[in-house]
Amino acid sequence: MKIYDVENFPNPLRVRIALAEKNATANVEFVPVDLLNGEHRTEAFLAKNPLAGVPVLELDDGTFISESTAITEYIDTAFEGPSLMGETAKERAVINMMQKRAESMVLDAVATYFHHATDGLGPELETYQNVAWGEKQGEKARQGFSYFNDVLAQSAFVAGEQFSIADITLYAGLVFAGFAQIAIPNELTHLVAWQEKVAKRPSVAA
Amino acid sequence: MKIYDVENFPNPLRVRIALAEKNATANVEFVPVDLLNGEHRTEAFLAKNPLAGVPVLELDDGTFISESTAITEYIDTAFEGPSLMGETAKERAVINMMQKRAESMVLDAVATYFHHATDGLGPELETYQNVAWGEKQGEKARQGFSYFNDVLAQSAFVAGEQFSIADITLYAGLVFAGFAQIAIPNELTHLVAWQEKVAKRPSVAA
Ligand SMILES: N[C@@H](CCC(=O)N[C@@H](CS)C(=O)NCC(=O)O)C(=O)O
Ligand SMILES: N[C@@H](CCC(=O)N[C@@H](CS)C(=O)NCC(=O)O)C(=O)O
Repeated sequence: MKIYDVENFPNPLRVRIALAEKNATANVEFVPVDLLNGEHRTEAFLAKNPLAGVPVLELDDGTFISESTAITEYIDTAFEGPSLMGETAKERAVINMMQKRAESMVLDAVATYFHHATDGLGPELETYQNVAWGEKQGEKARQGFSYFNDVLAQSAFVAGEQFSIADITLYAGLVFAGFAQIAIPNELTHLVAWQEKVAKRPSVAA
Repeated sequence: MKIYDVENFPNPLRVRIALAEKNATANVEFVPVDLLNGEHRTEAFLAKNPLAGVPVLELDDGTFISESTAITEYIDTAFEGPSLMGETAKERAVINMMQKRAESMVLDAVATYFHHATDGLGPELETYQNVAWGEKQGEKARQGFSYFNDVLAQSAFVAGEQFSIADITLYAGLVFAGFAQIAIPNELTHLVAWQEKVAKRPSVAA
């Protein structure tokens, strides 16, 4: 299988961590997308993902899967190794909920701040910006940091005692926050300690 | 188990359809939330869902699950009956992707239009509005209709030949669009025919 992406970008990072957690990285051929020159908005790329984003997984039968959660669902179901999305109904539901919270409260909020309230990817790519909305989402991200700090005061990982896709999404959100220069306050000691712990996992540090 | 919700609201509808598809509605006690009077923003409700939205599932052990996708994951895993989220890795990935597209391109876009570019739930509840962003999302929803019309020209349901959570999300998005007075153009004949077909399913018509 192939993954079209840009190394080090936050959404691609999610899927690369998931693959590494499953020890499955060697199964994938990575195809770089020239995002900064708009390759993701060409007809050829839109045929792979009409939403013009990376990463996109291509299966050997030619099926294209976009959305980091969907690609992770594929990886988690297709490969052996510790489950990233849970096994029982309750585990799967809690992980799904916490993953979604990490997206809406942090990763997507930071992305919207970046694309709307900063220069983002530059004037050629940022063809519509709504600064007030971007700033509102920056505020939301900061509230999200504080929410997850409280969560991580109670449990080792975002969705309980096991590492899961919810940790991957939050971690990518914090990486993106660093890039977008939204500072994570030092007072949020549980969040900061968790970030350091995740950064040391072989799937992330490698 | 209990579900805190508001009958006929779009997100609660998603979960009620999922339950009915699984023939599991009788297992649930529904607890009405007085959303129009702000009950969902009280301390008591925020302890159930910090994002202040319905529906919320309460399991018999006291665990609260919010987010319609997470609740549906619970229902799909815990109850017998045709799968709403797929079985193989590929099925699960395609359904996850199409569900996410139905959310971002239609349901969430319509919700943002409603809360930002119309009176929404009224001045007491709509404490921050960004009209330009709301209108942009209204436009996005209309493009979403057209995207799904093309999808439904090719397959019986949103994620292929089987009814799935992706259909539930899109259907709830169209219900919400009707409520928010975003018209679905008659030219989108595949989308309109699909909507009529889904409306007749026992899980929806009941
Ligand atoms: N919801 C998508 C988001 C994908 C996304 O937005 N990726 C970014 C890179 S991190 C992108 O392609 N941006 C292109 C652009 O903003 O034009 C996912 O889960 O993968
Ligand atoms: N992402 C949530 C959305 C929940 C949501 O926004 N529900 C609406 C009712 S359809 C709500 O509670 N709105 C409250 C408000 O806007 O103040 C889900 O998947 O359930």
